Amino acid sequence: MAKIVRFHRTGGPDVLQLDEVPTPKPQAGEALLKVEAIGLNRAEVMFRQGEYLEQPEVPSSLGYEAAGIVEAVGPDVRGLQVGDRVSSIPSFSMGKYFTYGEVALLPAFALAKYPPDLTPAEGASIWMQYLTAYGLIEFGPMQAGNYVLITAAASSVGLAAIQMANAVGAIPIATTRNTTKEPALQDAGAAFVVNTKNDKWPKRVREITSGKGVDLAFDPIVGPELERVAETVRTEGTIFVYGRLSSEPTPFPLFAAMSRNLLIRAYTLFSIVTNPERLQRGQQWIYDHLAAKKIHPIIARTFPLADIVDAHRFMESNEQIGKIVVTV
Amino acid sequence: MAKIVRFHRTGGPDVLQLDEVPTPKPQAGEALLKVEAIGLNRAEVMFRQGEYLEQPEVPSSLGYEAAGIVEAVGPDVRGLQVGDRVSSIPSFSMGKYFTYGEVALLPAFALAKYPPDLTPAEGASIWMQYLTAYGLIEFGPMQAGNYVLITAAASSVGLAAIQMANAVGAIPIATTRNTTKEPALQDAGAAFVVNTKNDKWPKRVREITSGKGVDLAFDPIVGPELERVAETVRTEGTIFVYGRLSSEPTPFPLFAAMSRNLLIRAYTLFSIVTNPERLQRGQQWIYDHLAAKKIHPIIARTFPLADIVDAHRFMESNEQIGKIVVTV
Repeated sequence: MAKIVRFHRTGGPDVLQLDEVPTPKPQAGEALLKVEAIGLNRAEVMFRQGEYLEQPEVPSSLGYEAAGIVEAVGPDVRGLQVGDRVSSIPSFSMGKYFTYGEVALLPAFALAKYPPDLTPAEGASIWMQYLTAYGLIEFGPMQAGNYVLITAAASSVGLAAIQMANAVGAIPIATTRNTTKEPALQDAGAAFVVNTKNDKWPKRVREITSGKGVDLAFDPIVGPELERVAETVRTEGTIFVYGRLSSEPTPFPLFAAMSRNLLIRAYTLFSIVTNPERLQRGQQWIYDHLAAKKIHPIIARTFPLADIVDAHRFMESNEQIGKIVVTV
Repeated sequence: MAKIVRFHRTGGPDVLQLDEVPTPKPQAGEALLKVEAIGLNRAEVMFRQGEYLEQPEVPSSLGYEAAGIVEAVGPDVRGLQVGDRVSSIPSFSMGKYFTYGEVALLPAFALAKYPPDLTPAEGASIWMQYLTAYGLIEFGPMQAGNYVLITAAASSVGLAAIQMANAVGAIPIATTRNTTKEPALQDAGAAFVVNTKNDKWPKRVREITSGKGVDLAFDPIVGPELERVAETVRTEGTIFVYGRLSSEPTPFPLFAAMSRNLLIRAYTLFSIVTNPERLQRGQQWIYDHLAAKKIHPIIARTFPLADIVDAHRFMESNEQIGKIVVTV
């Protein structure tokens, strides 16, 4: 038997509960992990609310990221041994697999070793954030000298984008609505921090870029703010739209886009993880830059597994700076 | 003295009038054309209405396209001789230059020879339409085997896109709301014609592409229809947004875009004509394919200069299939 987190109806954080279930037995191509740390993601909040791309079938387990020790592998699993220290790459259906629990059942292809000098909490915090932000490098391509606008920058992906921009010699401009987060964003490597509470904030970004506009914008918010983001982008620059934190409708930023021939790229991690070559390039980039200490995951706070409800509440508070981790 | 078309206030077609003005004398870098034919564009309708990117100062002349004979050149003009048979590339400010008249004043860089086997009416109909549709090749890139959705396909740019798709071995799917235009679109080379009066039209496009979706969409309409256009596009496909014929607001097609990692490229001819290398590639492509009879401008109807008001009325009727030309 093992304790795993499940919800029996969609809803707020308190629908999450620890259920004692028979320990799953990995089938062909699967592996069972003894979990040491779980990385939390916005996707799981949305899944729990029934608002994700994928609909849960209750009672449902959940979770994209965990670090742990391989405890058992199913038939036909190659390149993975019992005892290996691995973490999970979000490249699977949350309806079928899960990471929130004392154990995690996962497809073997979604497990990768992480650098031995990282703690399990850090190991559970690398793939979603760095592979998502890696889209900037794969598709931007983000290069030395580029100005890069990073909205909602205190999220784990936002911080990853800041670090990766610095790693390639680009100039990250971070935004937040929360004044108290500004120093942390500067500490994390933002060359400039712009507060978006003031509607005139795009003017500040224009000033920073000497009127030219940013080369790339990386935005998980959309909604009406997308028009302001578009105001900050240079002629033929690119906006990555990689989430929809705003609950308001999103007008297409037609005027800015047509005036300056903007490119808007709707982007999700799936376009990396479902493409073996991109995934391989992304993983290698991340291994190389972790080893060179050019990037390093920032943990906002850790919670014990018993406090999973509080951990989700904390995510919804939007007070965190970096990754929320649950340790087991 | 020369007769040129001007308007003394913005408004409907009947604000256009023939004014007798002193024949302009070309200054440095400019040329004067004895006009033989004028190609009409939607941009001029919008300019006349005061709804274009550029605002007119009344009394204002207008016009992007004309074919004619070089009558005079200003100082510092190279590569252009009096007597040359040329037509204009829309790469200048309509506030400063014009083509609607017995004469046209234009920057010399905007004049290019056109193939001698084309009539002046055809010569006045090539640059806007083919250079605009050339964006598909430059940026798509549109390639053999691609399915290409072309909305508002009976416009001159739409027909140009159909011809260019066929020229590279792509499969053009043309849309129209007007049943009577369907045969003409087939004659023009559309592999499929889809009527968009029925809201379920994206389903038909999905069927044509065996469920996969089109590789490229080329849309000058936007408005609420952009969401339906997005439904037809394959994973990681591209939508070119190159106009805004719709007077309704345009919601960002978030669900389709995020589900399939779509790229939306806001695109105007300026990104070609203000970039010498792209312009050179585009012109060469057009010369080569005109010579090979792979593309050929379709003239909807010609009007005499005295009937310029009727010509603009006809454009606004949206009944035309191809280019409206005024002969002088």
